[in-house]
Amino acid sequence: MPDMPLSPTERSTPRRTAHRARTDRRTLYEILDAGFLCHMSLVRDGAPVTLPTCYGRDSDTLYLHGSTGAHSLRAAASGVQLCVAVTHVDGIVYARSLVHHTLNYRSAIVHGTAHVVDDHDAKLAGLRVITDNVTPGSWEYARGTTRKELASVSVLAVPLDEASVKVRDEGPGDEEHDIADGRRWAGTLPVRWELGAPLPAPDLAGDVPVPGHVLRRPG
Amino acid sequence: MPDMPLSPTERSTPRRTAHRARTDRRTLYEILDAGFLCHMSLVRDGAPVTLPTCYGRDSDTLYLHGSTGAHSLRAAASGVQLCVAVTHVDGIVYARSLVHHTLNYRSAIVHGTAHVVDDHDAKLAGLRVITDNVTPGSWEYARGTTRKELASVSVLAVPLDEASVKVRDEGPGDEEHDIADGRRWAGTLPVRWELGAPLPAPDLAGDVPVPGHVLRRPG
Repeated sequence: MPDMPLSPTERSTPRRTAHRARTDRRTLYEILDAGFLCHMSLVRDGAPVTLPTCYGRDSDTLYLHGSTGAHSLRAAASGVQLCVAVTHVDGIVYARSLVHHTLNYRSAIVHGTAHVVDDHDAKLAGLRVITDNVTPGSWEYARGTTRKELASVSVLAVPLDEASVKVRDEGPGDEEHDIADGRRWAGTLPVRWELGAPLPAPDLAGDVPVPGHVLRRPG
Repeated sequence: MPDMPLSPTERSTPRRTAHRARTDRRTLYEILDAGFLCHMSLVRDGAPVTLPTCYGRDSDTLYLHGSTGAHSLRAAASGVQLCVAVTHVDGIVYARSLVHHTLNYRSAIVHGTAHVVDDHDAKLAGLRVITDNVTPGSWEYARGTTRKELASVSVLAVPLDEASVKVRDEGPGDEEHDIADGRRWAGTLPVRWELGAPLPAPDLAGDVPVPGHVLRRPG
């Protein structure tokens, strides 16, 4: 549903900084696809509980991954409402005035109800989506998942129906009188992820080369 | 209270990966102090709502920052329970088997009830804690906050009484038979933040130098 707008519900409609809101699916997908760690939150005993976990996206479905032993994922599995947040910090914005200091960022806050993916083939497909997002190339390279191993993980699917998407990508928004004053520097420190050189496992045999999908993982 | 252990409540006690749990405050403080963006979650109309926002720590208090117009912060201000999550991804762990693929990370999940910092001096002090964490040096360098500007922001204080702290910092945990097999590479791709060169604001006068606190911000 790439052309279907994101549901403009009250909770997913940014009000304070409405001009930063994005309502197109393409931006939502780009933000999700640019990361691999989300913060999944749910309500437990009336209080919010957050769990950082890996994810992947296939079309309009977000797949989340975890152990069946993780109590937050077990709770999420029971059809409760989730909030899944993915935020990328792109810059630290230094303004002339303290009050206009801020961050440049891209954030996607997805609201929805998860369902557990139980069917064997669908579960493998969901795991593949997550694997292809976090460690592209590993699905083909690594030793596959046995039925027993598959039983030890949970795969949750969250429909991408309702989301709040915000992007800030600009310099400081200083007051006219501070700009006119002319004495103070203002600008942005870019922030980005960087991947280092691969570190072999301590128990790795000496003659196994680093595979290309690790060496050249997009960062 | 650096020697007081973190409250071992049921929701803040990791069960699945108990060996990754840390119960000392020093580790909690190190994880919080290593970042500046958190995911704050609360319950609104029975559903979880997450807001990414900046923070700073002073002793055993976490200060969160936002506009008074942000509805999530207004809700948090009314004394509801919060969950504040800070996660650093340190590595992508490639195992010989798919099921042991994972991340190296440090995560702090704080549970607590926020209170609004309303007193003028205490609010300024809280803002300074946040500023010193996100943009160290700016408090001294930038134009200070007027009373009107101060009224436009909310400062929330969350006590660091209850938190779930987890650290994974090791190579892949493969099965013996996969290690013995010896055909596949396993190891870790380190992940880190990087700060780029400062980008001056488009409206900056040409002769204002980049201040040292921006040039040499710890990254």
